[in-house]
Amino acid sequence: MQPIEQVLAQLPAEIVTRDPDIIAGYATDFRRQHTGRTPALLRPRDTAEVQRIVRACAAAGVALVPQGGNTGYCAAATPSDSGQDLLVSLERMNRLRDLDPGNLSLTAEAGMILAEIQHAADDAGLLMPLGLGSQQSCRIGGNLSTNAGGLSVLRYGMARDLVLGLEVVLPDGSLFSDLSPLRKNNAGYDVKQLFLGAEGTLGIITAVSLKLARKPRQTVTAFLAIQDIASLATILGMAQEQTGEMVTSFEYLSDRSLQLLLSARPEPRHPLSAPGPHYVLLEAATASPVLNLEDTASALLEQLFEEGLVSDGAIAASGQQRAAFWTLRESIPEAEVHHGGSVKHDVAVRSSRLAEFIQAASAIVAREAPDAILSVYGHVGDGNVHFNILAPAGSDQPGFKRSLEASVSPLIYDLAALMEGTFSAEYGIGQVKRDLLARHAPAGKLALMRALKQALDPRDLMNPGKVIPHG
Amino acid sequence: MQPIEQVLAQLPAEIVTRDPDIIAGYATDFRRQHTGRTPALLRPRDTAEVQRIVRACAAAGVALVPQGGNTGYCAAATPSDSGQDLLVSLERMNRLRDLDPGNLSLTAEAGMILAEIQHAADDAGLLMPLGLGSQQSCRIGGNLSTNAGGLSVLRYGMARDLVLGLEVVLPDGSLFSDLSPLRKNNAGYDVKQLFLGAEGTLGIITAVSLKLARKPRQTVTAFLAIQDIASLATILGMAQEQTGEMVTSFEYLSDRSLQLLLSARPEPRHPLSAPGPHYVLLEAATASPVLNLEDTASALLEQLFEEGLVSDGAIAASGQQRAAFWTLRESIPEAEVHHGGSVKHDVAVRSSRLAEFIQAASAIVAREAPDAILSVYGHVGDGNVHFNILAPAGSDQPGFKRSLEASVSPLIYDLAALMEGTFSAEYGIGQVKRDLLARHAPAGKLALMRALKQALDPRDLMNPGKVIPHG
Repeated sequence: MQPIEQVLAQLPAEIVTRDPDIIAGYATDFRRQHTGRTPALLRPRDTAEVQRIVRACAAAGVALVPQGGNTGYCAAATPSDSGQDLLVSLERMNRLRDLDPGNLSLTAEAGMILAEIQHAADDAGLLMPLGLGSQQSCRIGGNLSTNAGGLSVLRYGMARDLVLGLEVVLPDGSLFSDLSPLRKNNAGYDVKQLFLGAEGTLGIITAVSLKLARKPRQTVTAFLAIQDIASLATILGMAQEQTGEMVTSFEYLSDRSLQLLLSARPEPRHPLSAPGPHYVLLEAATASPVLNLEDTASALLEQLFEEGLVSDGAIAASGQQRAAFWTLRESIPEAEVHHGGSVKHDVAVRSSRLAEFIQAASAIVAREAPDAILSVYGHVGDGNVHFNILAPAGSDQPGFKRSLEASVSPLIYDLAALMEGTFSAEYGIGQVKRDLLARHAPAGKLALMRALKQALDPRDLMNPGKVIPHG
Repeated sequence: MQPIEQVLAQLPAEIVTRDPDIIAGYATDFRRQHTGRTPALLRPRDTAEVQRIVRACAAAGVALVPQGGNTGYCAAATPSDSGQDLLVSLERMNRLRDLDPGNLSLTAEAGMILAEIQHAADDAGLLMPLGLGSQQSCRIGGNLSTNAGGLSVLRYGMARDLVLGLEVVLPDGSLFSDLSPLRKNNAGYDVKQLFLGAEGTLGIITAVSLKLARKPRQTVTAFLAIQDIASLATILGMAQEQTGEMVTSFEYLSDRSLQLLLSARPEPRHPLSAPGPHYVLLEAATASPVLNLEDTASALLEQLFEEGLVSDGAIAASGQQRAAFWTLRESIPEAEVHHGGSVKHDVAVRSSRLAEFIQAASAIVAREAPDAILSVYGHVGDGNVHFNILAPAGSDQPGFKRSLEASVSPLIYDLAALMEGTFSAEYGIGQVKRDLLARHAPAGKLALMRALKQALDPRDLMNPGKVIPHG
């Protein structure tokens, strides 16, 4: 019997799917740029079944690709085209195991959809602070495996920062289980850190205990037009000072990104009468019912006007208007797809140098690809910008983008490196950025990554071909 | 030539000390319970010298013990009594390499004293949020190697949570260097996490980039008397709600701990007229000059009185009074030493079960050692309590404490484990808690720890005999 058949023969029939029509939806990545092949899709229902799968694979020498909601940008959850990797979806493991309001924590299985975790927290009067554009379909195990960032990192941190406990099936099928939702635990190495951001290459996360926060009772959302991009850092600083670090989101949009969006859909309309070359969506929130956040925000806005840092601005007067502001920000990726897709650069630098990066990178594009369209937006409060480049309307889009990737992208990444920045602030590596990692990894990092992989998964059966650069 | 002499012969004479009088101060731990022996103390002046030391040791098969400020509670930085380990103090590497107010970050060498980092941040109008009782002498490399907690974890997190970048000399003498102070970086495994909390067993941290916070413009400090310890969680919840999560410290003291302290020193006096069996030192702070924190705190205190949750309380009216409140909290360990020392239990459980733990552990002591004196205090806002037991005055102190350690401590730790808690919330393992780790480690953890140690330091030359339990 072939090794793959040996594995499948040991598993309950209900968790094995060989139907190519069903498999197809799982074997192509979210951006539809990578399609792999797999002989079977496995959908375990509990941790013990994940262990059975991994043990059987370890015994037969068969490789595995774990998958959550399949919303990643780097094809980390897409099988290779060898047709030799089994695909393991965690989607059936979607139970809430525990919610403890008095401890501000919950424990969820890896396949739980992020929005469902948010709802569970909300029902308990609390906040699950991780927020992502893909939250209706991404699953928490994938969020952890990619150390997802998103819309409120400024206040609450990355996915890693929310993890109190973790349960992981290791490459030999054994279990690491430490789900105690403790705020402090220095009892030995914090081994759970290994698996956060490892994109399934060191084991399969099956459950997690997460920190929750108190639910905001007041939220203020403002949309600001800015003339000089160099003012961003000053504006954020003033907002943090005035509100006492209550800023939850500080999102940047270039006017070009906004125009791209407005031309692609009828709603919402432009929120300001006087367009600026740059915009910020600023949101601050507090659990306090007594502190006056609205007055604080109004005073801040007035000061920003007076000092000439903001040329126009509006504070959302209703939940509907707040939602409209957010739609503007969150629909940019969709508008890029509508245009024909973009070449994405997920860069972070020091906040103090972000404007300088955007200006220098824009100059590179103006020089190397003057016809290209820039779509620049992102979580600038974290020093993170999505510096995306689109082909001009009417051009040979695939050809233009290939040419951008070959000639412009390396210059953008070299610029980021020169400024001590990163080529992957939040998207991860997957199969897409391994060469970039090989080129830009800091001293000693690749050797350490390989040593870890070798120590935990010496036969390279967990998500092979992902994250770790070629030999 | 002996291996140790081979190593020393390769090093600059200025960094080698063989004087036993000098060495003595480094070879005994902070609590004076462990004294080791070493043929020489090495005090490198820069990262390149650390690499020279580690390379020479790797070549000769000589073991190393790294040391920061020597303020740990678990003797992790104390050499064994084999006399075969070289002691490496990082104290001469105490430079500030970078401070970037616009990025809210700084880069410091590992030997910089925590208080000096705090001063540097303060001089730049910012806050270094890590605060420890030992901050006048502990060094940041040690704080990171033990993932120190301290007095404002509730708001700012543990040492780990403040780290943006790290530089580490690995066991083969090579360098891992990634000091870019980025808020977000998902470019491959986050390998720096390995070394945080590893107590020098996987390499020597030589520099770090740290997150800073905005400096508080308003601080409110209250000292509250509480009749029912079960109210602690409710009081913290109300304080967090009212202040919008601005609480920086929520520290518990039992009346017995306070009495121990007041009997040991003339100042400060008891801050309240009506003593309660329990006290909380609550501090909230904000960078905002406009939000009214004082009114918020007064309203909170009024509500706590009205609901009968607090029986007496005072808000510090001056910086002097605030300092006095803090002296009460921070002098307890010293009062315990003055009494003759204590048997310490550094436990954390879920915040929602902390009162239950304290009550059940107290019942164990009342049953097993009715003469013993309890000193219970700690960072209860994080679910962390220092449940310490003292011998009665006039008793055979060393004998009584040995008996407590043999008969009562295991019961306390078993209770913590039964409640999903930890036996080492913030102190670490060192050489003191290895057996506890062997007994209480969650499923799969020890195997992972051993795999990591084997992968990075296969010859066990980095701080041998620490953290990892015996085979």
